[in-house]
Amino acid sequence: MIRAKLLILPKTGVFDPQGETLRRALIQQGLVETQSVRVGKEIIIELQDADEERLKKKVEEVAKNFLANPVIEQYEIEWERKEQ
Amino acid sequence: MIRAKLLILPKTGVFDPQGETLRRALIQQGLVETQSVRVGKEIIIELQDADEERLKKKVEEVAKNFLANPVIEQYEIEWERKEQ
Repeated sequence: MIRAKLLILPKTGVFDPQGETLRRALIQQGLVETQSVRVGKEIIIELQDADEERLKKKVEEVAKNFLANPVIEQYEIEWERKEQ
Repeated sequence: MIRAKLLILPKTGVFDPQGETLRRALIQQGLVETQSVRVGKEIIIELQDADEERLKKKVEEVAKNFLANPVIEQYEIEWERKEQ
């Protein structure tokens, strides 16, 4: 099995209202050292073993066109092979 | 500056409707090798340098009591020190 771990974050410089709300909340919770917070998504996709090149190309494609919004979001993909 | 990277995921075995919806969508997008998808949150907190022990304890506390729901979610925290 192959596992793709996709991390999607608002681009630096793009206003992240969820992060800003959380920043205030964390300070109120006593974590006064908080300077900035960014909130993103983590999508873990477990894939049947197949031609690895095809999988990487295809996951890259869905990440760019379907899962992330490249105008305001950046993403990275980490790969992991799991033997069963 | 210290950076805490908090990853929150639905626990294994807990039904994840968002992941299930995404699994079907990815297959429809042609990623037919998709077996399972889990969707979680990534929260990146940048903190002023302070007593590291206090920060770790405090972030652990807000993660458990405020950011994650330990009944249905698991979380892990990665730490990174950034020199400026």
